[in-house]
Amino acid sequence: MAFVRRQPVRFQHCDPAGIVFYPRFFEMLNATVEDWFAGLGMPFARMHGPLNHGVPTAAISVSFHRPARLGEVLDIALRLVRLGRTSAGLAMAARCGDELRFEARSTLVWVDMASGRPAPWPDDLRARMAAELEESDDA
Amino acid sequence: MAFVRRQPVRFQHCDPAGIVFYPRFFEMLNATVEDWFAGLGMPFARMHGPLNHGVPTAAISVSFHRPARLGEVLDIALRLVRLGRTSAGLAMAARCGDELRFEARSTLVWVDMASGRPAPWPDDLRARMAAELEESDDA
Amino acid sequence: MAFVRRQPVRFQHCDPAGIVFYPRFFEMLNATVEDWFAGLGMPFARMHGPLNHGVPTAAISVSFHRPARLGEVLDIALRLVRLGRTSAGLAMAARCGDELRFEARSTLVWVDMASGRPAPWPDDLRARMAAELEESDDA
Amino acid sequence: MAFVRRQPVRFQHCDPAGIVFYPRFFEMLNATVEDWFAGLGMPFARMHGPLNHGVPTAAISVSFHRPARLGEVLDIALRLVRLGRTSAGLAMAARCGDELRFEARSTLVWVDMASGRPAPWPDDLRARMAAELEESDDA
Repeated sequence: MAFVRRQPVRFQHCDPAGIVFYPRFFEMLNATVEDWFAGLGMPFARMHGPLNHGVPTAAISVSFHRPARLGEVLDIALRLVRLGRTSAGLAMAARCGDELRFEARSTLVWVDMASGRPAPWPDDLRARMAAELEESDDA
Repeated sequence: MAFVRRQPVRFQHCDPAGIVFYPRFFEMLNATVEDWFAGLGMPFARMHGPLNHGVPTAAISVSFHRPARLGEVLDIALRLVRLGRTSAGLAMAARCGDELRFEARSTLVWVDMASGRPAPWPDDLRARMAAELEESDDA
Repeated sequence: MAFVRRQPVRFQHCDPAGIVFYPRFFEMLNATVEDWFAGLGMPFARMHGPLNHGVPTAAISVSFHRPARLGEVLDIALRLVRLGRTSAGLAMAARCGDELRFEARSTLVWVDMASGRPAPWPDDLRARMAAELEESDDA
Repeated sequence: MAFVRRQPVRFQHCDPAGIVFYPRFFEMLNATVEDWFAGLGMPFARMHGPLNHGVPTAAISVSFHRPARLGEVLDIALRLVRLGRTSAGLAMAARCGDELRFEARSTLVWVDMASGRPAPWPDDLRARMAAELEESDDA
């Protein structure tokens, strides 16, 4: 069971070759992460505002299988695959219909923006992430 | 010996946390690749225009070691580490002064945009890339 | 009666001041124009693909009344206010709830991308635009 | 006498029509404003960091005369045309060689980011801006 966000491929995403300029895929991935955290009760406005924390990406690996074209609609799936004390591992995949377009693995870190240092996930957020991880393990 | 491109961190690259929004790093990497190809006699305007070819990224892995801040200047180094018949492996690293900020490994493919299929590197471009690879092997 | 597109303010839109970096508003406006044309039966994929035409912006004026912040949701309204032989005038306004955030006036031109020159609107598209203009005049 | 910034048209700026996607022009204008303020002794890192002020754009009007293409180099000129107590008027123009590509007029406001309200220009910055205005009036 993964979180899925629907993403149309817009004019602004595409390059002179008529396909998505690959840095735009990272904006799409980030929007997916943002919506996933909102669904866990941690919208970015709260995270970056009153809480003054962030979830910078420490590492990411992406394989691009096929290009995406203007007017296509991508379904970007996100699954939590590892939950550490201050970090998390995500697996993401973008499909157009049944066709895989790209896959990504990333590591996020919960960071206190005041100190710039990793911090333990807040308890309520951690509990919700742990619940997702268990669902995922069952799958 | 690596190709190095200097990249100031501008306002447009930075997020509400005051650091570079990581998808912008991929735009910086792409600009570095673009300048490197121009230096090899293959500017993107020629590649995507009259030649109707492209160099899409097939895979990329990045480790982000430290954030980059507004006003900093990054030196982004690019080194060719593998030259295949239709593909190439690149190693890139961004430093601010002596401090490593992020490292990337990517695979590019020379693609005929008309067919969307990989094609052998043109001879003159391949010769120049091979020369860079040898220099790199010697280092 | 205006066409309205809902636009969440995402992390990727915001700058170190925590508000939308104003060039991102133009991406939002362009996405609104794109969806409006799709609703008129002219999706950009068809326009830029088989038809090989485009609707470049010839001029745009924007007044920014108040900033938009991470997590807010904007309603971007678009109204056709002038329909020429090869061009169109649009009035756009972005609100968060009842509060006006910015207003724009733009001129688009229907351009044959092969020649780079303005061309008369296709009849079917023109008829639909004219219908919108009449509704708008009645309002 | 205007401040001029050289701007190559990169792959990342261009759309499926092979020309600059117009919101990217606003990023180019913003970079020009950023470099101009740096030249006035007010780099954005200082402005947005220790000073906690900003220069949001209150209004901007742009006329796009001709498209810009991948590989072209634009010279973006900026001239101060009005200096108010808390605001400034700028005239900008982008040329490729002798050919005018777009012109812009904008109003910036010096804003205290803590209150979100306009504030008088700092004396030292104002003095430098006033000097530029006089030069400009003489021209």
